[in-house]
Amino acid sequence: MGGQTVIAVPAAGAMGAGLSARLVHRGARVVTLTEGRSDGTLRRAAAAGMESVTPESLARAPVILSVVPPEVALSTAETFARHVPAGSSPLYVDLNAVNPGTVREIEAVVTRAGARFCDGGIIGLPPKQAAGEEGPRLYVSGPGAQAALDLRAFGLDVALLPGGTGAASGLKMCYGALTKGLTGITTAIILAAEREGLGDALHAELGRSQAALLTRSGTQIPAMFPKAYRWVREMQEISAFLGAGRPEAAIWENLADLYARLATDAGDREAAEAFLGRGSDAER
Amino acid sequence: MGGQTVIAVPAAGAMGAGLSARLVHRGARVVTLTEGRSDGTLRRAAAAGMESVTPESLARAPVILSVVPPEVALSTAETFARHVPAGSSPLYVDLNAVNPGTVREIEAVVTRAGARFCDGGIIGLPPKQAAGEEGPRLYVSGPGAQAALDLRAFGLDVALLPGGTGAASGLKMCYGALTKGLTGITTAIILAAEREGLGDALHAELGRSQAALLTRSGTQIPAMFPKAYRWVREMQEISAFLGAGRPEAAIWENLADLYARLATDAGDREAAEAFLGRGSDAER
Repeated sequence: MGGQTVIAVPAAGAMGAGLSARLVHRGARVVTLTEGRSDGTLRRAAAAGMESVTPESLARAPVILSVVPPEVALSTAETFARHVPAGSSPLYVDLNAVNPGTVREIEAVVTRAGARFCDGGIIGLPPKQAAGEEGPRLYVSGPGAQAALDLRAFGLDVALLPGGTGAASGLKMCYGALTKGLTGITTAIILAAEREGLGDALHAELGRSQAALLTRSGTQIPAMFPKAYRWVREMQEISAFLGAGRPEAAIWENLADLYARLATDAGDREAAEAFLGRGSDAER
Repeated sequence: MGGQTVIAVPAAGAMGAGLSARLVHRGARVVTLTEGRSDGTLRRAAAAGMESVTPESLARAPVILSVVPPEVALSTAETFARHVPAGSSPLYVDLNAVNPGTVREIEAVVTRAGARFCDGGIIGLPPKQAAGEEGPRLYVSGPGAQAALDLRAFGLDVALLPGGTGAASGLKMCYGALTKGLTGITTAIILAAEREGLGDALHAELGRSQAALLTRSGTQIPAMFPKAYRWVREMQEISAFLGAGRPEAAIWENLADLYARLATDAGDREAAEAFLGRGSDAER
């Protein structure tokens, strides 16, 4: 009432800036932190129409959307909590790829500071355009979820999940585990085939009997390499979500180690690209 | 020349019997071992028109197709080797899901006994009909591979791979790693979603954004449970193929442990079936 809605998005990563551009296009004022951040962050923030403010000013926004790498989800909440003005009760929406246990820690930090908390999880890629309707789905659950639905007025696809705090982030864990697990095992096997001189044979056989998997790999694997470093912690969060002692927890723990290697090994990247660069059977 | 071709298929499992029915339909005489085997084996052998013989008689066949669970691939070759008649040089084709290192051990056993060796790997399900052309592809490589192409005359889809001994089994390792890895990680995540009360939400989201994966899971996961016990050793062979010390070796080692659990845990099976039994979004 009586003024522009202010939404804080503490970090202008690809997803944070993409969502912010949509919010700004729909009339919100989006504030962020850029001090000490990379040139890429500064450029993305400016392009999205985000406004750089101090941590004190950021914590005065009535809505905060935390969209950060999973390893800084908790510290982002702690920084915010130190600056919440007395007597205010902003809505803090944690949209990060962290496991429900981590989310509950974040909830405790945020509610102790007087803020309301909403668990969230993002499924899909950043919006390609500020205008339009296309974009990722934001699942929300827990006490603040109903209030977070107001973000729909700013062009975001927000879906309410039953189940309380932990449900939205649990769904994100499941979804990321599937899509990034599939990309990880496919990459591992493509690299094994290349090492063993079986790249031609495997490519031809996949073209013959697993065409959908080969097509998916052709887009998902090249797109993965620049993001692999960010997936390491997400795989570790998934491992914690799956429960220590189960073999599946060890599978995703080792997917984290795989992505750590893929993030840095130029030879792996070249070998995967060589495999995927082969013409399909139909083209030969 | 001057008589029916005799082909030995030492074990009448689902694949061995399926291939044998095709061979018999196309005019071969197929001999097998059934002494001490299960009623299921006896029934499958009889239905396929396979003839039960002694190990001595089996080793007199000019062609032997070893199609057995991976844990008995080596012992099957050793039994055969003990009975090869002096002066004969039968063709021993190992079609099992074992890693190239194991294949080289088998090759040594078989050639020491005077037989010729061919590495092989089967991709696809057993033929559904003795007649017709549909069936799995048999990749072959190494010294005996050219001779193994003669099996095409009996209705089998045999494809020659370059690369020598180890290539055909290496390709099988890659292929089984992908398809069974995908089924394993999907099952693990479906079970996690059910444990966390997120089955409805994950099913709906997959229906919305990963419809092909959901459709594949609906057929592959129910078909997996009765076979899971057989996949344990195959995942271990894949782990060895991927090379100790790499995180991917640990991923498939843990997939072996996962399949060992899935093979015996009735609760897991019920939970996975409950997940897959949900109507698709479109049906609700």
